Amino acid sequence: MTSPIPIRQHAGLKLLLTLVLSLPLLVQAASPLPSWNEGPSKKSIIEFVQAVTDQGSKDFVKPEERIAVFDNDGTLWSEQPMYFELLFSLDEVKRNQAQHPEWKTTQPFQAVLENDHKALAAAGMDGIMKIFAATHTGMTTEAFDDYARTWLAQARHPKTGKPYTEMIYQPMLEMLDYLRSQDFKTYIVSGGETGFMRAFAEKVYGVPPEQVIGTTFVTAFEYKDRKATIVRTPKLAHNDDGPGKPVSIETVIGRRPILAFGNSDGDLQMLQWTAAGSGKRFMGLVHHTDTKREWAYDRQSQIGRLDKALDEADKHGWTVVDMAAEWRRIYPFDATTTEQVQ
Amino acid sequence: MTSPIPIRQHAGLKLLLTLVLSLPLLVQAASPLPSWNEGPSKKSIIEFVQAVTDQGSKDFVKPEERIAVFDNDGTLWSEQPMYFELLFSLDEVKRNQAQHPEWKTTQPFQAVLENDHKALAAAGMDGIMKIFAATHTGMTTEAFDDYARTWLAQARHPKTGKPYTEMIYQPMLEMLDYLRSQDFKTYIVSGGETGFMRAFAEKVYGVPPEQVIGTTFVTAFEYKDRKATIVRTPKLAHNDDGPGKPVSIETVIGRRPILAFGNSDGDLQMLQWTAAGSGKRFMGLVHHTDTKREWAYDRQSQIGRLDKALDEADKHGWTVVDMAAEWRRIYPFDATTTEQVQ
Repeated sequence: MTSPIPIRQHAGLKLLLTLVLSLPLLVQAASPLPSWNEGPSKKSIIEFVQAVTDQGSKDFVKPEERIAVFDNDGTLWSEQPMYFELLFSLDEVKRNQAQHPEWKTTQPFQAVLENDHKALAAAGMDGIMKIFAATHTGMTTEAFDDYARTWLAQARHPKTGKPYTEMIYQPMLEMLDYLRSQDFKTYIVSGGETGFMRAFAEKVYGVPPEQVIGTTFVTAFEYKDRKATIVRTPKLAHNDDGPGKPVSIETVIGRRPILAFGNSDGDLQMLQWTAAGSGKRFMGLVHHTDTKREWAYDRQSQIGRLDKALDEADKHGWTVVDMAAEWRRIYPFDATTTEQVQ
Repeated sequence: MTSPIPIRQHAGLKLLLTLVLSLPLLVQAASPLPSWNEGPSKKSIIEFVQAVTDQGSKDFVKPEERIAVFDNDGTLWSEQPMYFELLFSLDEVKRNQAQHPEWKTTQPFQAVLENDHKALAAAGMDGIMKIFAATHTGMTTEAFDDYARTWLAQARHPKTGKPYTEMIYQPMLEMLDYLRSQDFKTYIVSGGETGFMRAFAEKVYGVPPEQVIGTTFVTAFEYKDRKATIVRTPKLAHNDDGPGKPVSIETVIGRRPILAFGNSDGDLQMLQWTAAGSGKRFMGLVHHTDTKREWAYDRQSQIGRLDKALDEADKHGWTVVDMAAEWRRIYPFDATTTEQVQ
């Protein structure tokens, strides 16, 4: 077959193709993070991404090794007045109370049913794990997925009145998009239960189920009459918090991330693991400094305590995002504000 | 900016672009599985892939849901005279014996050091797990990766004299490529230890570390003086065999595969889990029928026993690949044979 275009015009064709093909890159480069004010964090993100994606750079990283990991609670969406998944669990205890008359007189369930925050707080992490097990297990993975999706569709946040899946950080959504446009693979690595996060991560963050890593319960395969199910059991398999994060990253991904973003001491080991790799690395922390548009908390907070990790960030020059100063907009539903870092 | 090509020639340009862009598809469609003889298995694979990738088909599956899972031992590479990873482990026991004088008088290690196959067989699966733990743990993940790569580079198969990483099935490599060209995500889900398989899966099969799922040991994060390591402990975390396969698929991938390929009863539950999903599915078994070019074994074999899964395949019309009749070539290093299914 001969070309329908005379040979002499191939140079023009090539130029046109080059221009058309580079257009998305030019648009992207113009303004990759519109909800971030000009400031140190935006600058450090863009400089890092440019360094590792520029073929001519000494810091160039092959696309398949561009692994980016993000905590979820407090990093991609809000976590106040308590982890949203805990709010789900409390609602599930109430929804299921008719099937569990014993909960009326058994802690920590009694505290949940009576809205007794003091008794609930007294039950501590053990109490929370009991509530988690009671609301996350004893059912098939498909049934749990349905419960999680139903709650996420109906529940509203006590302060904003918005669905929880809208209380996500617009600047972080833009960062996820920006990274993916530069051939990063974006993962969630978070203390939340894997199945719960998978119920919204793909739709809300563009992160597919296989890139969601979290806390897991032991499951069991059951097969009868050509019907196959996987049943969630109450036995904890993996606690994806603190040192559990680098462990699950290594088990599931098998590559060390070159970028990690968190917001609390529970992310410290993930950041350390990322930082200790060879070559250029990016370690980031969302610092909740915004009493007006979100919440302000760090060293003394029960939820999302940021203390040791803040010290390490200061010591090693990790990026700490001052939410109040550096984020032009918090949630997608916010009007764009005009605040700017001076 | 105006186009450097006059408007009237855009029709020609469009035609050229269309032709150029469709060329790879035409080539692909012409002969996607060259080492497969024309026969029922090749036909069923191609019919399945065409059905789920054709936008107009009632069986169309969105690209992100095109998950394909493959067992490794006996499905992607050979497994005789015993699992290659077990041969690695036996060699590692010998290599490390100076550091373990107690092994001289402790089973199953004594059997390994004395090449006492009878005593080794008598130690059974418990013995194998002891050997696995002794050779796969008590070191960092990086150190283990080095040991595995070193062995894979040097060791040779007792029968063929070839590196183990060359005793892979050419027809299955072509199938992996074919599926990926049709936007499938190809996973290994196998009883082998995850880190061992990751040491060669990317180079040999084109399957990246994050798509390798296998047996795992509990690991621990350690951090000292800004040096971070993940240490393998001897405690088994997950046995990725039998019912362990659908469990790990659900935990790690979080989507049900639409295609699964195995070769033994250890793959039965993975095939059942795949088969029990809604919509069109493909379940395949490699049947080792080739005494001349590979090995022939099934119902009575100690390694790779194929008994119950063969019955289920017959009952439900799963694809059973007759290796002797349907594979034109076994290994990449084989000369192409001219055998054809009549």
